[in-house]
Amino acid sequence: MSEFVITGGYVLAPDMKLKRADVAVGSGIITQVGECQSAEQTIDAKNCIVMPGLINAHTHTPMTLLRGACENLMFEQWQKCIWNKEAKITPSDVHLGSLLACVEMIKTGTTSFADVYIHMDRAASAIKKSGLRGVLGWGVIEGFGEPLREKLAHRRAFVRQYNNAADGRITTMYAPHSPSTCSMEALGLLSRMSEEDNVLVTTHLLETRKEAETLKKDNCHLQCLKDAGLLSGRLLAAHSVWANDEDIKILSQHGVSVAHNPISNMKLSVGTAPVTAMLREHVNVCLGTDGAAPGGSLDMFASMRTAALLRRDRGQDTHLQDILKMATVNGAAALGLLAGQIKKGFLADIILVDMKKPHLTGHDPLSALVYSATGADVKTSMVGGEVLMEDYQIKKIDEENVIERVQKWIDDFNCWSFRELPVK
Amino acid sequence: MSEFVITGGYVLAPDMKLKRADVAVGSGIITQVGECQSAEQTIDAKNCIVMPGLINAHTHTPMTLLRGACENLMFEQWQKCIWNKEAKITPSDVHLGSLLACVEMIKTGTTSFADVYIHMDRAASAIKKSGLRGVLGWGVIEGFGEPLREKLAHRRAFVRQYNNAADGRITTMYAPHSPSTCSMEALGLLSRMSEEDNVLVTTHLLETRKEAETLKKDNCHLQCLKDAGLLSGRLLAAHSVWANDEDIKILSQHGVSVAHNPISNMKLSVGTAPVTAMLREHVNVCLGTDGAAPGGSLDMFASMRTAALLRRDRGQDTHLQDILKMATVNGAAALGLLAGQIKKGFLADIILVDMKKPHLTGHDPLSALVYSATGADVKTSMVGGEVLMEDYQIKKIDEENVIERVQKWIDDFNCWSFRELPVK
Repeated sequence: MSEFVITGGYVLAPDMKLKRADVAVGSGIITQVGECQSAEQTIDAKNCIVMPGLINAHTHTPMTLLRGACENLMFEQWQKCIWNKEAKITPSDVHLGSLLACVEMIKTGTTSFADVYIHMDRAASAIKKSGLRGVLGWGVIEGFGEPLREKLAHRRAFVRQYNNAADGRITTMYAPHSPSTCSMEALGLLSRMSEEDNVLVTTHLLETRKEAETLKKDNCHLQCLKDAGLLSGRLLAAHSVWANDEDIKILSQHGVSVAHNPISNMKLSVGTAPVTAMLREHVNVCLGTDGAAPGGSLDMFASMRTAALLRRDRGQDTHLQDILKMATVNGAAALGLLAGQIKKGFLADIILVDMKKPHLTGHDPLSALVYSATGADVKTSMVGGEVLMEDYQIKKIDEENVIERVQKWIDDFNCWSFRELPVK
Repeated sequence: MSEFVITGGYVLAPDMKLKRADVAVGSGIITQVGECQSAEQTIDAKNCIVMPGLINAHTHTPMTLLRGACENLMFEQWQKCIWNKEAKITPSDVHLGSLLACVEMIKTGTTSFADVYIHMDRAASAIKKSGLRGVLGWGVIEGFGEPLREKLAHRRAFVRQYNNAADGRITTMYAPHSPSTCSMEALGLLSRMSEEDNVLVTTHLLETRKEAETLKKDNCHLQCLKDAGLLSGRLLAAHSVWANDEDIKILSQHGVSVAHNPISNMKLSVGTAPVTAMLREHVNVCLGTDGAAPGGSLDMFASMRTAALLRRDRGQDTHLQDILKMATVNGAAALGLLAGQIKKGFLADIILVDMKKPHLTGHDPLSALVYSATGADVKTSMVGGEVLMEDYQIKKIDEENVIERVQKWIDDFNCWSFRELPVK
């Protein structure tokens, strides 16, 4: 017996075609797609596309606290600027920033995400509260006085304590920051730990030309990472802007997933990831926003549009289906979730996009999703069958309160606010 | 005596800084900015940025009818595909498509725009109804059996009849399609007519590499256009993707305005306009969406973000103020409007952007406007002091009715709609 049925909408089916179908949900799972028997409760999807919730494969939720800071800088200067500010961020700040990110993600159609930052136990409590699904990694950067073994023991405790928390909505992963900020030893140890604990491992990989050149200069490139045991189906690599043809083949051979972050890459001026070449080599390319500081927003529709435009900009054949898959099916594969498809037996992580909007009126609803929609077109959102937003109203978090608290935090952080200026 | 005062907001001042100020409006004009005496009627701008309405310097409003058609094509194939469809568009279709565009523009914060298409008398009636401000050109492409002189006489009649229509909200311009589709004779005659009638002239200029190479091959380049009298402060050139350093100097010398359309350029894969170089040479660069077919939407916030990202992508110093100016001050200068600034004596073309949103919470409201906002954050919009949208509600047009009529038109045009599929 299904608990509710989503009726009257147009379902984005796993083959990335639209069909008229109802979707029945029970026990957090999609129990039927098609002509469904009526349930006591229905959700009206009239004029809506019923599609898998978007999967943000690379973000740093607490970075909402730093949105708009460190603008107009090149990568190295930007990183220095951000790290200086991050040094002042406390565990309770992380909770607050992550909570705001959850609100933003719910409102813009993201239902699950891969999240790396510090104090991730506090992010976990925010994510638990939000109802979203997250794969959490507590980042590892070497140095800062703490011996590596202690650091890794701490991360292992986090991974084990929080894996399958919040009724299974929270899972965990290991998260070496990058091959530039972690030794091969650390990368190797974390890879082995991810294997032992059967969790993912994620890292920034080949984000900048400098990182690529350093690896190359050490006569290492991806070979060292392979030797360290990092390259596997458990690895979710972020960016991979500087992957060359040979790298792409290696990533493909080892089943590595790559999270493409088009907006962050453009804004930080690091280059453009070879997405078309990666897809050609059957690399599982998924899509992310990166943190709100480099990404501006956590709106995955903006990421889809920009990913499509970057490929069109280079004259590359860009199928709408490929872009939509990156944000759904491929993300689910990377995060190890039985989600990302409206299909019987899959998690009921579902969004309703209201297509009766002036800017979504057109010849091809899939084109509208990719090139015309924004997160603000998402009307209703659910995770594991729990409705987190209905008819544009967030249900589990006091949105206004969170916004006010974060804005106050930011104003206090800067010791200044234009909001305090006198009228003149 | 002011008719109403916008109170409690943060004004984006002409120097592109925010200040706390009220804005008084009377007879369609901004009568005061600062501490304003109370009026009978007030508009509450709490939590809002009060900024000039955005100016879309290049669009084709009726192209909403072709949104999502002709996807994933290179420029020449795309143009062929679109022209085939446009051949079937009737005057009443133009009215309908333009009406939908007006709804979309009002909802996303555009208050005035430069618009070129066919059957522009019918677009004019839609724009009149909408309350928006438009500069309208009836496009000229040579051939199609009609003698040039007759065509030009027709355009002159349009220019003269509709200039200063709708209480001055509608003005007109001459609109040769491009140097590729118009002879030098036509360009010269239209330039002279624009001078005689004291109106603007607009054309696609150096949009594609092919057009640039053709002009070069004819040993002409911009010199012929100069000889034809086209280059002047009355010229609004669209795209100028292939303007080289010498071209940019010539455009600057003659006071030509350039409308940059970043999304269209990326989607049609024509290249990237040298915006940074143009600004360095003091070319008046403004911003457009192009039509909804190449642009996906008419959301000028998306254009601002993409324009900024394209410059960041190339590692170029990208000041938020420059981007905001392109969409306001520079657009007004190009269109010859006393608008684009919140300043006493200027037209009361004003929008309120609600900043109390999760994705707009951050360190720098200007960064939020450029990198995080979408048109859906525009809460209230007015043109010449007339409120066209208040608290997200369109006031003068039955939005739902227009959407339904356009979607039916599109479905009939394609003889197919996924909306008609049986449930299965």
